[in-house]
Amino acid sequence: MPDVVLVVLDLLGIAVFAATGALVAVRKELDVFGAIVLGAITGLGGGVVRDLLIGAVPPAALVEWTYLVAPLVAAILVFVFHPTIGRMEKQIGVLDAVGVALFCVTGAVKALEFGLGVLPAALCGLLTAIGGGMMRDVLAGRVPVIFREELYATPAFAGALLAVAAVELDLGAWAYGVAAGVCLVWRLLALWRGWKAPLPPGIDRG
Amino acid sequence: MPDVVLVVLDLLGIAVFAATGALVAVRKELDVFGAIVLGAITGLGGGVVRDLLIGAVPPAALVEWTYLVAPLVAAILVFVFHPTIGRMEKQIGVLDAVGVALFCVTGAVKALEFGLGVLPAALCGLLTAIGGGMMRDVLAGRVPVIFREELYATPAFAGALLAVAAVELDLGAWAYGVAAGVCLVWRLLALWRGWKAPLPPGIDRG
Amino acid sequence: MPDVVLVVLDLLGIAVFAATGALVAVRKELDVFGAIVLGAITGLGGGVVRDLLIGAVPPAALVEWTYLVAPLVAAILVFVFHPTIGRMEKQIGVLDAVGVALFCVTGAVKALEFGLGVLPAALCGLLTAIGGGMMRDVLAGRVPVIFREELYATPAFAGALLAVAAVELDLGAWAYGVAAGVCLVWRLLALWRGWKAPLPPGIDRG
Repeated sequence: MPDVVLVVLDLLGIAVFAATGALVAVRKELDVFGAIVLGAITGLGGGVVRDLLIGAVPPAALVEWTYLVAPLVAAILVFVFHPTIGRMEKQIGVLDAVGVALFCVTGAVKALEFGLGVLPAALCGLLTAIGGGMMRDVLAGRVPVIFREELYATPAFAGALLAVAAVELDLGAWAYGVAAGVCLVWRLLALWRGWKAPLPPGIDRG
Repeated sequence: MPDVVLVVLDLLGIAVFAATGALVAVRKELDVFGAIVLGAITGLGGGVVRDLLIGAVPPAALVEWTYLVAPLVAAILVFVFHPTIGRMEKQIGVLDAVGVALFCVTGAVKALEFGLGVLPAALCGLLTAIGGGMMRDVLAGRVPVIFREELYATPAFAGALLAVAAVELDLGAWAYGVAAGVCLVWRLLALWRGWKAPLPPGIDRG
Repeated sequence: MPDVVLVVLDLLGIAVFAATGALVAVRKELDVFGAIVLGAITGLGGGVVRDLLIGAVPPAALVEWTYLVAPLVAAILVFVFHPTIGRMEKQIGVLDAVGVALFCVTGAVKALEFGLGVLPAALCGLLTAIGGGMMRDVLAGRVPVIFREELYATPAFAGALLAVAAVELDLGAWAYGVAAGVCLVWRLLALWRGWKAPLPPGIDRG
């Protein structure tokens, strides 16, 4: 994958996640700095954890100024336009799914580039995709959405596995698109149709 | 300590902790993926933090597939058999104590192997033993058990110190057993007899 | 900055933050080990995260015994004298502000010494200053104070930026004092005068 494409997709995912973090901050009635900090942590947290795990230190999020501007702009936009953005529940779900789809691919590809094996790289893709959202929810004092919602981790892991396969088989850029697309479509279908994973035996869904 | 023994003990500890994480997930009525993710984080979290701190990157938990299979199997078993397992409150307390005893030893020994000094290595043992459980509790939205319960951190730190002594004095494998045993017995006695650490002056135990 | 000054300031900041962590523990009626663990995490957490991010592994907090004694002593003092210390709400706010002012400077300077650029180093200073407190609050089950309070992150970031400028322009030790002083005074004024950051449009301050 050409590096510039990887970077643009990464920045897009960061901005999208940062927007979800800033929105949580606005709903908790935090001030503008709370929105920026929570937005930045949501947008960059997954990638920072991945970079620590693969030994890419200091993490890209800390070194490249573009990685800092993306969540800053996204958080401020959400802060200012939140009455409009807050009504767009559905669109935010779609954006979040786009972020997950982008991060599971870019996370897995970066881990491979740092010499990790196939399965570890796929796990890094998964962690990149879900890490920021988990930090957002823990900091905001709620159980992470990944534990409460429709299928979330599974599509991300599938996308990461496909991205790893695309690199290993040297399939070219279109295959990354397929990987992200599978993750995105699966997640959106789960969201719209309310697909649920199995609950423990003997427990009913409220 | 022969490496294979270290690995087997480590895997055992991971599976045990993962089971406690999955059980928390089941009680919070999370779905099967929630149980797997929370189980994996509980089982592997302490070791990953230790590996990051000692510079063992990428962490073993991410690279060795055996380290991934252990929590996966444990979490699924708990998920399926939870009505039975859920009644085994006492047995789970024992298993958790076994996990703590194993991790404080293996964590301290690994840190020494990576060149850390005596006290830092003992602290790494402590962190390995309590880290996963703290992540489990924070993610599940409750104050970490280590802050609420009978003696927990002290036995783990004692076990880690003894393990460090065993390595430094070149005492051989039996001494690791003693280290883990001291931690285990101490913790179990605290559990069964309700040993408590001192509360702040002027505060009564509810 | 002479290394010994940096270390003394760092230790002072650690002790102060550890005291705030131990005080939260006492108020939650945790026992003496809870106070020590929460104090140590609050005092050392920000620096450990910074060290991981800049590749200073193993972190200083784990290797230098002085870094361990400082929070231990502070936590035990708070535990024993909490009825007196607990009434000193105002003094604790001042101490916490001193800790923030010290950490944003030492954190930024250390990051520069490890080869980070200007903006990344300033961010490391910010993270050092706010990281431990965020961990304290998440572990204690409350939304981080940085999200709830008067201006907190902004003075820390300003102090970190000034510290970076002091190093880059080779201004000497007095400039570090100015950097910490600006952060401290700004934070104290925010605390005493109730300066607030803007809330989202359409939301009133309760």
